[in-house]
Amino acid sequence: MSSTYRNFRNSVPWLILLLEAVFIILFYFLFSHDHVFINSYPAFQDVSHMVIFGFGFFLMFLKRYGFSSTGINLLIIVLGVQCSVLIDLLILLLQRQNEHNLERLIKATMSMTAVVISTGAVLGKTNPVQLILMTVLELIVFRMSRWINNTFLQVADNISMMHVHLFGAYFGLAISSRFSEPSPRSEKNASTPKSDLLSMLGTVFLWVFWPSFNSVLFERDRWRAICNTYFGLAVSAVTAFALSVLTTKDGKFRMAYIHSAVLAGGVAVGYAAHSIEYPWIAMILGLLASVIAILGSYCSQRCLNPPLKLHDTSGVHFTFGMPAVLGALAQVVLLIIKNWTDLSSVGYLVMFQVGAFCLTISIALVTGFIAGLILNLRLFKTIPVSKYFDDQFYWEFPHLAVGF
Amino acid sequence: MSSTYRNFRNSVPWLILLLEAVFIILFYFLFSHDHVFINSYPAFQDVSHMVIFGFGFFLMFLKRYGFSSTGINLLIIVLGVQCSVLIDLLILLLQRQNEHNLERLIKATMSMTAVVISTGAVLGKTNPVQLILMTVLELIVFRMSRWINNTFLQVADNISMMHVHLFGAYFGLAISSRFSEPSPRSEKNASTPKSDLLSMLGTVFLWVFWPSFNSVLFERDRWRAICNTYFGLAVSAVTAFALSVLTTKDGKFRMAYIHSAVLAGGVAVGYAAHSIEYPWIAMILGLLASVIAILGSYCSQRCLNPPLKLHDTSGVHFTFGMPAVLGALAQVVLLIIKNWTDLSSVGYLVMFQVGAFCLTISIALVTGFIAGLILNLRLFKTIPVSKYFDDQFYWEFPHLAVGF
Amino acid sequence: MSSTYRNFRNSVPWLILLLEAVFIILFYFLFSHDHVFINSYPAFQDVSHMVIFGFGFFLMFLKRYGFSSTGINLLIIVLGVQCSVLIDLLILLLQRQNEHNLERLIKATMSMTAVVISTGAVLGKTNPVQLILMTVLELIVFRMSRWINNTFLQVADNISMMHVHLFGAYFGLAISSRFSEPSPRSEKNASTPKSDLLSMLGTVFLWVFWPSFNSVLFERDRWRAICNTYFGLAVSAVTAFALSVLTTKDGKFRMAYIHSAVLAGGVAVGYAAHSIEYPWIAMILGLLASVIAILGSYCSQRCLNPPLKLHDTSGVHFTFGMPAVLGALAQVVLLIIKNWTDLSSVGYLVMFQVGAFCLTISIALVTGFIAGLILNLRLFKTIPVSKYFDDQFYWEFPHLAVGF
Repeated sequence: MSSTYRNFRNSVPWLILLLEAVFIILFYFLFSHDHVFINSYPAFQDVSHMVIFGFGFFLMFLKRYGFSSTGINLLIIVLGVQCSVLIDLLILLLQRQNEHNLERLIKATMSMTAVVISTGAVLGKTNPVQLILMTVLELIVFRMSRWINNTFLQVADNISMMHVHLFGAYFGLAISSRFSEPSPRSEKNASTPKSDLLSMLGTVFLWVFWPSFNSVLFERDRWRAICNTYFGLAVSAVTAFALSVLTTKDGKFRMAYIHSAVLAGGVAVGYAAHSIEYPWIAMILGLLASVIAILGSYCSQRCLNPPLKLHDTSGVHFTFGMPAVLGALAQVVLLIIKNWTDLSSVGYLVMFQVGAFCLTISIALVTGFIAGLILNLRLFKTIPVSKYFDDQFYWEFPHLAVGF
Repeated sequence: MSSTYRNFRNSVPWLILLLEAVFIILFYFLFSHDHVFINSYPAFQDVSHMVIFGFGFFLMFLKRYGFSSTGINLLIIVLGVQCSVLIDLLILLLQRQNEHNLERLIKATMSMTAVVISTGAVLGKTNPVQLILMTVLELIVFRMSRWINNTFLQVADNISMMHVHLFGAYFGLAISSRFSEPSPRSEKNASTPKSDLLSMLGTVFLWVFWPSFNSVLFERDRWRAICNTYFGLAVSAVTAFALSVLTTKDGKFRMAYIHSAVLAGGVAVGYAAHSIEYPWIAMILGLLASVIAILGSYCSQRCLNPPLKLHDTSGVHFTFGMPAVLGALAQVVLLIIKNWTDLSSVGYLVMFQVGAFCLTISIALVTGFIAGLILNLRLFKTIPVSKYFDDQFYWEFPHLAVGF
Repeated sequence: MSSTYRNFRNSVPWLILLLEAVFIILFYFLFSHDHVFINSYPAFQDVSHMVIFGFGFFLMFLKRYGFSSTGINLLIIVLGVQCSVLIDLLILLLQRQNEHNLERLIKATMSMTAVVISTGAVLGKTNPVQLILMTVLELIVFRMSRWINNTFLQVADNISMMHVHLFGAYFGLAISSRFSEPSPRSEKNASTPKSDLLSMLGTVFLWVFWPSFNSVLFERDRWRAICNTYFGLAVSAVTAFALSVLTTKDGKFRMAYIHSAVLAGGVAVGYAAHSIEYPWIAMILGLLASVIAILGSYCSQRCLNPPLKLHDTSGVHFTFGMPAVLGALAQVVLLIIKNWTDLSSVGYLVMFQVGAFCLTISIALVTGFIAGLILNLRLFKTIPVSKYFDDQFYWEFPHLAVGF
C-alpha cells in the first residue's frame, strides 16, 4: 500500500499546481484592489500570526510529526485563505455586499481556524492531498452555513463567525470517525518533553493573541471583547493548572491538559465577548470551560472514545468543541437574562440563536461524515495505520534522525 | 520529605481554586467595563507578550526545568495580573482616582515583571505554592511602596513604576537568602546548548519589545523614550559581546553573560528614558549597565555570593538589580545637571528621588526577608535540596526523558 | 593557524569597543531627538523583529552553528543599525534632507537586511571580526549606491531601498567566492531535524511580517503593497511545496527548499508591491519566484557552483538574488505596459529603472569582490576550513554537547 502511495505521490504536486492555477484565474476575474484605512492591519496580522505560527506550533506535540505539523499547516492555510477569499467573492456576485478586502482577508483567515481545528482531529492520519481536499470542502460548507445563518436566521455575520470553533471541532470529529484508529501500542502517537515545549511555545502565542481574535470583528465593543476574553483566558489558565493536578495520579501537572485547557476559556467567551457586561461572568465561563476541557479529556480517554471508535489526535473535542457548546449556551442564557422583561422578543431571539447553533452543529456533523467518506475513497490512497504520525513518510530527512 | 510534599500536593489545587474564587467574587463587586479608546492596546499586548512569552522562555536555561520555567511562569502571571488589578481597585475605594481599565491592566502586567524577576532569583528552589504566595505578597508590597512614593514623595506614578526591576531583584535576592543553597556538584543546575538556545529565543523577544515597555506609560515623550531605550539596548548588546570575550578564559563568547547583559541597558535606561535629551547619554548608560552586569556576575560567582551564602539562579542581581541602581543614580545626576541654575528646587527634587530610591530598596529587602521566612514555614513543605531544578518533581513526563 | 586566531581573539573585544566608542562620539555630534507622530512605530517594530528574530532563527539550520547564527546576527545588527544611522546623518551634513528619526531607524534596519543576507552566503566561514568589517563596508557601499540611484537616476528613495535583497545577495556571493570551499565530506555543513524546525520557526516569522517590510516605506499605497505581498507570498508558498515534491527523488517534501522558496515571492513582489494593480499579477510573480528559487537551487548544486567554486551556505543566490532580479525585470515590464501610449516618457523611465538595476548589481559584485579580498588579508586571521560551521570555535559550551 505504501508503494501505491509512492506512485500516487508523483501526481500530488500537479494537483496542487492545478488548484493554484484555478485560483489565479479566478482572482483575475474577481479580485481588484480597493482603498481602505488600514487601521485593522495590526489586528489582521495578529490573527494571521495565530493561525500560521500559533497553531503550527500548537500542533507540534507529536514526537515524530513536527515537520508536517508546521509545514503542512502552512500549506493548507495559504491555499485555504485564497480559496476562502474566492468563495466570498463568488457569493458577492449573487448578493450585493459592501466589504473591504482587508475585512475579507481577516474573515478568510478566521475561517481557516475551523480547518486547522479539524486538522487537529485527524493529525497524522491523513495525507496532504486528503487535507487539501478537506480544506476546500470545509471552507465551502462553513461559508454556506454562515450564509444560511445570515440570511434565514438573521444572525449578524461577525457573530456567526464565532461558530468557527464549534464547526471546526465537530467537522473534524465526524471526519476522524471514518479513519481507522491507530494501534494502541503505537509509540509514535506520543510526545517528548522537547515536542511538548515547542507545543507550549505555540500555546502561549495563541493565548497572548486570543483577545485580538475575539475582538477583531467588533468595531464598537472592541475593548469590552478584549477585556472579557483576557479575564476568561486568565481564569481558564488558572483552573487548568489546578485541575491538571487533581486528575493525575501523583498530583503532578500534565502538559497535555494544560495545552488544551488554557485556551478553552477563550473559545467559550468568544460568542458573547462583545456583549458580556461584567467580566466576572467571563471569568466564570472561563472556569467552566477549563473544567469541561480537562474532565472531558479525562473521561473521553476512558469511556467515550473506545465505544465510539473515535480517535481525536489533539483532543479538539474538549479543547474547542465542548467549550464552544458551553459558550453558545451561555450566550442564550445571557440573552434571556438581559431581555426577560420583554418576553415575546426574547422568544424570537432565543429561537434564532438556538436555531443557528443546532444548524451549525448539524451541518458540521453531516457534511463532515460525508467528507470523511469521500476522503476514504481508494482514489486518495489512505495511508496505512503503520505509517500514521510519521514525518519520514512525507519528508526527506537530512539523515537518520537519531537525536530527534 | 518528598513524600510529605506528595501528601501536601493534593491540597495545592484547592488552594489555587480558592484563591481564584475569591478573585471572582471581588471582581463581582469591584470591576465594571468602561469605554476607552484602545490606542494603547498594541502597547499592552507588547508588554503582555514580554512577560508571558519573553520571560517564560528567558528563564528556560536550566536543562531539566523547561516545563516549570514556562508553565509556572504562565500560572503566576495570570494569577498575579488579576490580583494586581484587584489591589488597584481596592485602593481606588479609599482614594478617588480616574484611570481606565486598560491602563490598569497595563500597570498590572508591568508590576508582574517584579514578580517574574524575583522568581528568577529562586528559580528551581521553590514549589508552586510558595511561588503563588510570593506573588501575592510581592504585589501587595510593591503597590504599597508605589503608593508611598506617590503620596509622600510626590513621584509620578509612571516614574515610580520604573522601580519595578529594582524592587523585583532585591525582593528576590532577600527571599533567596532564606533558601538553602543547591549542592555545588549538582549537575541539574546547568544549561545545555538546547536550553540556552530556547532561552536566547526569549531574550531576543525581550530585547525587541523592551522599548515598548519603557515607553508605554509616557504619553507625551513616548517617541523619545523608545529611541533612548533602543540605542541604550543596542550599545549594551555590543558591550555584552565584547566583555563576554574579555572575561572568559579562551576568549570565547559565553551565552549566559550575553543573555543577561544584553538586557541590562534597557533596565538602566528605564528610569530616565522619557527625559534623556540626547541619545548618546542613553548609549553610555547602556554601556555602563552592560559592564556592571558582566563584571558583576563575574565577580559575584567568585567573591560575593559564597560568603553571603546567596544563590541567585538566573543572576537577577546583575541583570536587573545593579543596572537599576545605576539607572536611578543616573536619573539623579541628570536632574542635577538639568536644573543646576536653580539650586533650591534641585535640592528638593533630588531629595525626593533619592528618598524614593532608598525607600523602594529598603522595603524590597526587608519585606523580601520576611517573605522568605514565611515561605520557609513547615506549612509550605520546602522542597529538599536534592529535588532542586527538576521538572520531574512537578510534571508528569510522557516517558523517561532520555534525549532531554 | 587556530592558535594564531586564539592570540588574535584577545584583540577582538577591543576592536568592538573602539568601534562603539567612535559611534557614541559621532552620535554626540550628530544625533538629537525630534518630535514625531509615532504611527509607524508598530511597522518599525515588525521590521526590527524580522531582522533580529526572524533572520536570526532562519539562519539556524546548521546543526552545530545555532549559537553563532542567532548571537552574532544580533551583534552585527545592533552595530549595523547604529552605523547606518550615522552614515545617514553624515550625508545629511552634505545634503539638506528632511527626515524623521523614526524613518531613519526604519531605513537603517531595512538596510541591515542586505547585510544579513550577505551573512547567509558566508555563514560559518567567517570570524566575527570579518563579519563586523563586512557590515560596515557593505552599509557604506549600499548607502552610496542608493545615493547614486537617487541623485543621478531619479529613483525615489523608498524604491531604491527595495534593491536591498539584490544588493545583499550579490555582495554576499562575491565575498563568498574569495573564501575557500568547505570540504565536501564535512558533516558539520548539514542540518538536523531539530535545527530545521528552529529554522522553520524563523521562516514562518519572516513570512508573517514580510507584508509589513514591503509596505512600511509607502504612505499612500500601503494597503495595496500589503495585499500584493500577501498573495505573492501565499502563491510562492504553495508552489514551494509542489516543486519540492517534483524535484526530490522519492517525491517527498524537502525542508531546505521550502525554507527558501516560501520567501522568494515576497522578495520578487517587493519592487512593484505598491504599484501592481491586480493581485493576480503579484500571484504570478510569486509563482515564478518560487520556481526560480527551487529549480535554481536544484541546478546550482549540480552545474553552477562546482565550476565557479562558489559555496553559498544558505543558498541566498536563489532565495534572494534571482527572485530580486525577476522582481526588477517585472517592474520594468509593468512600467512599459502601463505607459505604452506615451512611448517617449516610457523610454526614459525604463532606461532609469534598468540603469538603477545594472548599477546596483555591478556595485554589489565589484565591491563585494574587493571586500572579499580585504577580509582575506592575513591581518584578519581567516579561520581554517576544518573549523568551518562550528560553534565551539567561538562559544564556550556548558559541557560537551552530546545531544546537540
